[in-house]
Amino acid sequence: MAKAPVLTPQADDFPRWYQDLITKAELADNGPVRGTMVIRPYGYGLWERMQQEMDARIKRAGAQNAYFPLFIPQSYLTKEAEHVEGFAPELAVVTHGGGKELDEPVVVRPTSETVVNASFAKWVQSYRDLPLLINQWANVVRWEMRPRVFLRTTEFLWQEGHTAHATYEEARDYAAHIHREVYADFMINVLGIDVVLGRKTAAERFAGAVNTLTLEGVMRDGKALQMGTSHELGTNFAKAFGTHYLSKDGAQELVWQTSWGSSTRMVGGLIMAHGDDQGLRVPPRLAPVQAVVLAIKDDPAVLEQVHAIGERLTAAGVRVRVDDRTDTPFGRRAVDWELKGVPVRIEVGPRDLENGTAVLARRIPGSKESVALSAVAGLVPDLLEEDQQRLLSESRIRRRTLTSEVTTVEEAAEAALAGGVARIPWATLGEEGEARLAEHSVSVRCLVAEDGSVPDRDDAPGNVALVARAY
Amino acid sequence: MAKAPVLTPQADDFPRWYQDLITKAELADNGPVRGTMVIRPYGYGLWERMQQEMDARIKRAGAQNAYFPLFIPQSYLTKEAEHVEGFAPELAVVTHGGGKELDEPVVVRPTSETVVNASFAKWVQSYRDLPLLINQWANVVRWEMRPRVFLRTTEFLWQEGHTAHATYEEARDYAAHIHREVYADFMINVLGIDVVLGRKTAAERFAGAVNTLTLEGVMRDGKALQMGTSHELGTNFAKAFGTHYLSKDGAQELVWQTSWGSSTRMVGGLIMAHGDDQGLRVPPRLAPVQAVVLAIKDDPAVLEQVHAIGERLTAAGVRVRVDDRTDTPFGRRAVDWELKGVPVRIEVGPRDLENGTAVLARRIPGSKESVALSAVAGLVPDLLEEDQQRLLSESRIRRRTLTSEVTTVEEAAEAALAGGVARIPWATLGEEGEARLAEHSVSVRCLVAEDGSVPDRDDAPGNVALVARAY
Repeated sequence: MAKAPVLTPQADDFPRWYQDLITKAELADNGPVRGTMVIRPYGYGLWERMQQEMDARIKRAGAQNAYFPLFIPQSYLTKEAEHVEGFAPELAVVTHGGGKELDEPVVVRPTSETVVNASFAKWVQSYRDLPLLINQWANVVRWEMRPRVFLRTTEFLWQEGHTAHATYEEARDYAAHIHREVYADFMINVLGIDVVLGRKTAAERFAGAVNTLTLEGVMRDGKALQMGTSHELGTNFAKAFGTHYLSKDGAQELVWQTSWGSSTRMVGGLIMAHGDDQGLRVPPRLAPVQAVVLAIKDDPAVLEQVHAIGERLTAAGVRVRVDDRTDTPFGRRAVDWELKGVPVRIEVGPRDLENGTAVLARRIPGSKESVALSAVAGLVPDLLEEDQQRLLSESRIRRRTLTSEVTTVEEAAEAALAGGVARIPWATLGEEGEARLAEHSVSVRCLVAEDGSVPDRDDAPGNVALVARAY
Repeated sequence: MAKAPVLTPQADDFPRWYQDLITKAELADNGPVRGTMVIRPYGYGLWERMQQEMDARIKRAGAQNAYFPLFIPQSYLTKEAEHVEGFAPELAVVTHGGGKELDEPVVVRPTSETVVNASFAKWVQSYRDLPLLINQWANVVRWEMRPRVFLRTTEFLWQEGHTAHATYEEARDYAAHIHREVYADFMINVLGIDVVLGRKTAAERFAGAVNTLTLEGVMRDGKALQMGTSHELGTNFAKAFGTHYLSKDGAQELVWQTSWGSSTRMVGGLIMAHGDDQGLRVPPRLAPVQAVVLAIKDDPAVLEQVHAIGERLTAAGVRVRVDDRTDTPFGRRAVDWELKGVPVRIEVGPRDLENGTAVLARRIPGSKESVALSAVAGLVPDLLEEDQQRLLSESRIRRRTLTSEVTTVEEAAEAALAGGVARIPWATLGEEGEARLAEHSVSVRCLVAEDGSVPDRDDAPGNVALVARAY
């Protein structure tokens, strides 16, 4: 009799596979309040690495971290009309504090444009204060009716950037810079996901933005995931909050703004882009643990050897864990590291030592071979780099394979419902076609220009709409 | 006529000096909801450095980061009787979510013992799962009637550790390990504050703890500040949430727990321990900017030189900022860096260049001298180390100077009200004396043993109570 698989196979039930993996790899649990999540240490380790890599890129883009309050007066939300319309249905409202009913209820931030602008209006006086480039790492709350861990949760963790500029052009260019140099660079080169860079249609724009740039990943089931967005806010919030500056010419001018965010949802994207029936596969550049060295048996020579290999790997710059918990059966530990998607496992037992070898198991290509003990530490860095490229290349091929060119709205809906991405000229689809797709829960993920670049308006000639079902 | 001071002098009005400094050094603002704060980039930079240093120590102590939800069912809080009694008056309550009234209101976490135990009860099965060592970086909310930025705010940022152990002794030792190796090591060796390590009396213990270890700093006005606490929770929360493990002998046993926290309040402590009438003084090991190189004038040779010095300092491992904003008057920039407490300023103007020198201004001793351009970068690392020691030594001397030995409750109250710390035998003071002190808003900050160590019970012979007013 064949052994029961650890996870529901993807082909049988992708959503169940996803939930199984999150539980078995100890990434997260549901919290006691519906829609909230507990991020377990291994899941949080993935998020911490995302934070490190993103934070470095955000700082290179010139933004500084700050922190704005969790609680926002309800009246602030209403100052920008589209914004409140977009977020009102999702708000959590605090009505009691310190044992008393509050005079004015406060909302738990769903995003921080309003409270940030209240500060910007004070901080920005003259052109010398611009550009003002701020980022914050925080939790936000959007009440979720159909929660799914990491993808749609009532509370999630994210970074949100908020900037103010002297001109439209500067703001536009900065939103594009974040889109490319922070988000795309991180997602492609660290997460190994071949995201599409595009522009949202008016229907899909952020509430209060004049333009939203997006990065869309294609998951293994052919559905799309919005992995991050960068918005041009125009002067919408500046008008609502009176964020002015004194120009060089001595005139009072409104600032031009951007905001941009990416969240713990990226952990969900990582799982669904790279995971397989054996578990997660973590790209080496992201992996909190790049290599694990396992002692197969409780034997002094084996224990000495695993620690020696661990030290050599650390010296070679590899993030390594030594697993010498020999009171837990080796098979169970090996399956656990496989589930957790650690790229390289080095397994050492008494028999290996006799031969002067170790078993080197690679999670990403799924290979296993015997290598000389003396060579193993030296091999790993190159293998990790190879695996990083392999995941990206797989993601690229998957996206191409799952994408088809179509010419009618019906074909687009059909392709999306079959689990794929349809490309259709925006001139053919239009807002009317977009509305028809919505009846099938299919959406325009983004518009791209003919040459694959990001278009600077919705109706530029040659614009292509990418159509899919989405998480 | 003498120039008006930038800040209210400490001697005139310490609380106003504190508020002036926070505003002028651009550390934080009040948020729109009463009691909340906006942490501005420079203030947040201090907190980020605290996080980095603390996080490294927490990880060395074996704890892993995770994340638990912001929202806790109201019913959870009531499971541990003392805990709810302590926190109920400070809770913020969400009654509406997603446009509807909630069936059960949820509270915004004031601390996470309850929601953490709900997870621990699931995660801990056998002795193999212990010790379980978890930390989280998060925001918490405690409704504040008399808020003061960084010191007492409705929302603050902190880390909270939560651990579960197989035995009382292990839990006790781990709480003490965190107290010493994480908190004291960081506060003394990085913050440069000569904290007292002691034990809280029963009256001052954390709600739900069986023992609270504390670190008390003495501020420049003679008041004490609790800088961090580490609690033994006994089996109180384990009983309330059913957190059991199967022992090696096959018996179901309750786990023994600890929790420990430190917060953005440490930024307030840093200000009040080291700040003077010219502004903040940041200990070099903490400082986000250790040295700033200022161009006095917009002159090509000057600009070239400041950048060259900046590069040499970076190469020497110094966290450096080059200030070439010559469109802002030099004097204003110099005062600003002084206010912000950057330890070393290197000022370069055309006249300095002619002499082949730069002015080196040191914020901590308050000195200013001319040094050879070729020598300046090489000098800085040693000066920074000297300044670090100087701040700690000042803090040590201040604590001794402000501390007096007394023998009666009246003398203790008098010394505290005069702005100092009184040491009185606990056998003399007792709980009755403690209650009398409370009438004067004076409290027992902690108990220490005769030899200065941390006592293992309140009534150990020779225990001394440290009595002061506190923030």
